[in-house]
Amino acid sequence: MERIRTVEVAGRVGKRVCVAGWLHSLRRMGGINFLIIRDGWGLLQAVAETEEEITALLPESVGVESIITVEGLVVSEAQAPGGVELHELKIEVLNPVSELPPISLNKRKLNAQPSTLLDHAPVTNRHPLRRATLRLSAGVMAAFRDILTSRAFTEIQTPKIVAAATESGANVFELNYFGRPAYLAQSPQFYKQIMVGVFERVFEVGPVFRAEPHDTTRHINEYVSLDAEFGFIEDHFTVMTMLRDVMAHILQTLQESYRAELELLKVEMPTVPEQVPHIHFAEAQELIYRLHKVDVRGEPDLSPQDERWLGEWAKKEFNSDFLYVTGYPMRKRPFYTYPDPQQPAYSNSFDLLFRGTELVTGGQRLHRYQDYIAALEQARLPIEPFEYYLEAFKYGMPPHGGFAIGSERLLMQLLGTQNVKLTTTFPRDIHRLVP
Amino acid sequence: MERIRTVEVAGRVGKRVCVAGWLHSLRRMGGINFLIIRDGWGLLQAVAETEEEITALLPESVGVESIITVEGLVVSEAQAPGGVELHELKIEVLNPVSELPPISLNKRKLNAQPSTLLDHAPVTNRHPLRRATLRLSAGVMAAFRDILTSRAFTEIQTPKIVAAATESGANVFELNYFGRPAYLAQSPQFYKQIMVGVFERVFEVGPVFRAEPHDTTRHINEYVSLDAEFGFIEDHFTVMTMLRDVMAHILQTLQESYRAELELLKVEMPTVPEQVPHIHFAEAQELIYRLHKVDVRGEPDLSPQDERWLGEWAKKEFNSDFLYVTGYPMRKRPFYTYPDPQQPAYSNSFDLLFRGTELVTGGQRLHRYQDYIAALEQARLPIEPFEYYLEAFKYGMPPHGGFAIGSERLLMQLLGTQNVKLTTTFPRDIHRLVP
Repeated sequence: MERIRTVEVAGRVGKRVCVAGWLHSLRRMGGINFLIIRDGWGLLQAVAETEEEITALLPESVGVESIITVEGLVVSEAQAPGGVELHELKIEVLNPVSELPPISLNKRKLNAQPSTLLDHAPVTNRHPLRRATLRLSAGVMAAFRDILTSRAFTEIQTPKIVAAATESGANVFELNYFGRPAYLAQSPQFYKQIMVGVFERVFEVGPVFRAEPHDTTRHINEYVSLDAEFGFIEDHFTVMTMLRDVMAHILQTLQESYRAELELLKVEMPTVPEQVPHIHFAEAQELIYRLHKVDVRGEPDLSPQDERWLGEWAKKEFNSDFLYVTGYPMRKRPFYTYPDPQQPAYSNSFDLLFRGTELVTGGQRLHRYQDYIAALEQARLPIEPFEYYLEAFKYGMPPHGGFAIGSERLLMQLLGTQNVKLTTTFPRDIHRLVP
Repeated sequence: MERIRTVEVAGRVGKRVCVAGWLHSLRRMGGINFLIIRDGWGLLQAVAETEEEITALLPESVGVESIITVEGLVVSEAQAPGGVELHELKIEVLNPVSELPPISLNKRKLNAQPSTLLDHAPVTNRHPLRRATLRLSAGVMAAFRDILTSRAFTEIQTPKIVAAATESGANVFELNYFGRPAYLAQSPQFYKQIMVGVFERVFEVGPVFRAEPHDTTRHINEYVSLDAEFGFIEDHFTVMTMLRDVMAHILQTLQESYRAELELLKVEMPTVPEQVPHIHFAEAQELIYRLHKVDVRGEPDLSPQDERWLGEWAKKEFNSDFLYVTGYPMRKRPFYTYPDPQQPAYSNSFDLLFRGTELVTGGQRLHRYQDYIAALEQARLPIEPFEYYLEAFKYGMPPHGGFAIGSERLLMQLLGTQNVKLTTTFPRDIHRLVP
């Protein structure tokens, strides 16, 4: 009999089916035996009313996580997960497991320290809660690509081994490239800008590497960046409009296609307003002074506390979980940032705050060759390492801009995960290279 | 007036539209001026019958590749690219370019050495032929994801910084990970197998790194691997059936959605037979002996010449551009390869040949913990570096297998590109870290 997936069983009431997967749990209750089969997509309950039916599972060598196939009759049962269960079972063991896993995979809650979850990720990632988180990560990537493809963006893949650090010499991993020093890309920034010259609208989903020597729950050293960059913009507000649509599409996709995962993780999904409210950096500092009597005016950046206050204000004032802060001071932004033509000390850049925490950074970039030469000079950076990048500007680039969403950070904030490391399959941190 | 894309102009005959892009070319022919505008998607001809209309383009500082906007009336013109052109022009220059690009971007042919194309990739990638190739690369990735998503595969992203080399200690890039040695992943092999334990069916599109010190037209040191792995297979033939469908879907997607690119590049697209013919490794060697009187029997692998002969045979015998060779000898395959239960010197693995060249490798993997312990012992490999990988097998894994398609190699063979470096945006080779 051909095997079907657990999530396909509900449509087969009254028929015999075959499922296969992991023995998620076996409870023996005075003559009646309940087993749960877990496959790659869901859980299915099977009920054996005779001892004979579960003979194959009785040896001590057959514990939870054993690989089994179960044939049975599909019966409606409101109490069972998915509303159906299997009766009259025929069970076969494909690969028995005798050792108990390092954590209980069949308890509803994940009662384990983050370090245990991470040390044993090859197994702990099988827990339905971990699986739901990782599945949402797939949903975020797919939704990001879908919306941008529908807006005529072209997908690119840019090199991860680079000759020089992207934005500064700090926090890069150095590697030995056939005897020469090379570095791991901190971001595809330069390459995605260059590719605006080729396809005008480009996006990339790929790993980026930051050698930040911080041992916190907010740091990982390799993460997945969702990058977009496009040409013929008016200014950073064009980019903000695009980002609003991207965020809205990602959230809508998760709500429509990942309902089970969101329920399992008890996620309270935000809605993205048609118009995300925005406030200029300088005004934001004035507002904080007025509302909280703390004078941060003149500071070059917002503190986490400032961001929380602004988040509260956006919620109260606009009933919005999202807020754009625009016009960050030029002196804290990278050299390719486009200055505000009206007030050149401020920039045509923005941060998107979500519930009072920075989620996405973006903005308009310089597009004239001479502006780059001047900006590098002002930043006291040499021209030579940037020559390949500058070549794109020498031969014609339109006004352009873009943004980068950290996939793990987005998930962390959406799901309220306490540790960013738990939003990814096998995180890399200052101590962790394995698994 | 709102700007539209060049490829949207054909539907607006009789209306005035605004397009924007790069000044691809300007020909002045005795009072009539033809200009071609290139945007991220196509080319559009515009005709100025008066000198006044092109005043903005006349200064010497405004050369090809200048960023311009052109407003004009859409007129049918069978001779023009796309069947339409603009008349009664209003031209504005957004960003003038005076220097001539390193190669002619507006000639139909690419008359340049590969090294020139690669050294100046930020600009040469703008040539319509280069752009078509790179766009097809996006199509391959999207089609790969689409077919696997529709087959209930989950997308994963696995770490690129790893503690040990994947399959052997050779040809890995070493990096400094907070003072410790680490390596760039040669393939997501171990992680994708582990994730079969989580999602059962997984795929990944991501960079892999091979420190092969070869300076040839077939080598690049960073490439995009299209990886798939899935559980509950019968044997390697289940994997071959899946791969057949993946290849068929990729080719069909390109033919349906990338027609302009395929025409531009004059690609002769193959069809994938419903049943791809297959031949066992040992039979293939017998066949070569019979047909070509060259005795390769007993050799542990097929030579490029062997593969070409087999390709010719498949074409003649089955009229197929594709041929599976199955059952490669165990001694040349990695330790996780599943042996043929009937003839343990041979493996449950395969290569897919396309027009006589190896295109994809795949097969069934070991799935029992004890088999791994034995295989590592036999390969004289220590267990310790593999412990995280083995943990997945300790706690229950189904029979599984998968394959990896090198995106660049696939494009090279489909398009007949002479140099694999020209199938990617910014290749990395033994000498090339820039651009």
